[in-house]
Amino acid sequence: MKMNEGVEWALHSCVNLCWLPEQAVPAAKLAAFYNLPAAYLNKQLQALTRAGILSSTPGPKGGFQLARFPEQISVLDIVVAIDGPDEAFRCSEILRDGPGGNATTDYRKTCLISQTMRTAELNWRRELAAATIADIVAKVERTFPATPENTRRWFEGLRT
Amino acid sequence: MKMNEGVEWALHSCVNLCWLPEQAVPAAKLAAFYNLPAAYLNKQLQALTRAGILSSTPGPKGGFQLARFPEQISVLDIVVAIDGPDEAFRCSEILRDGPGGNATTDYRKTCLISQTMRTAELNWRRELAAATIADIVAKVERTFPATPENTRRWFEGLRT
Repeated sequence: MKMNEGVEWALHSCVNLCWLPEQAVPAAKLAAFYNLPAAYLNKQLQALTRAGILSSTPGPKGGFQLARFPEQISVLDIVVAIDGPDEAFRCSEILRDGPGGNATTDYRKTCLISQTMRTAELNWRRELAAATIADIVAKVERTFPATPENTRRWFEGLRT
Repeated sequence: MKMNEGVEWALHSCVNLCWLPEQAVPAAKLAAFYNLPAAYLNKQLQALTRAGILSSTPGPKGGFQLARFPEQISVLDIVVAIDGPDEAFRCSEILRDGPGGNATTDYRKTCLISQTMRTAELNWRRELAAATIADIVAKVERTFPATPENTRRWFEGLRT
């Protein structure tokens, strides 16, 4: 089980965009910041745009910006936009093919194995839903106070 | 992100083996119970054996048995045995390649995005570690009291 590696890139890019609120930032520049492959990061940024997390401005001066306040973007929003909405544990309802199995029962609800797995995963998703990009930005600013200004200066072309 | 489908099969097989403590059950019989592909289920049962969850007896009268008490087999043990121990979110430490990145820093520990993702996942694993096969068996026996006897009878060749 492996989450799409683009989740890490997307989270970092959204955090960086919080410190660049006045500009549309090209994918190539967001990628260069971490030496990531630009075409692949661009795909992730397009997925975030389709999910309403970023807005995209076309053209030579174009790029990506946050489409919502950081308080309104959860970590789960980004995970789902990049990695998809499917649960990791997918109950295939094998009880239906067992002795006494019933064609009309929803075993995803009645099977106690399925319930155990899905409850744990739901709690994990709830924790990711409760964490926002604003929370992460606030923690970074408390822990590494120079980061916002260093990030802004890098994107303005003045490498720190 | 998708967990190996064998996790579902392995959980069900371990629960069924709780009701058949006196016998080594062949993979083909465990597979036939849910109409699963026997060769593939056998692979999962071998993985459970390598993990010390099952014991395997070779030969024509051979098969699989629980190697530990159900109270000592957590759901996480089975997930790790079948799906592997790796975290779903794998921090590739992209901060290292960013401005000010440091070759010796362990960004899996210092990066606040990594911390957020890993803490949530750790809590999910803790929840799976706290749930045992004995817990699931007890819930099944409370909710579907006929299941243990029906399962035993099926494996003894008397279809219910």
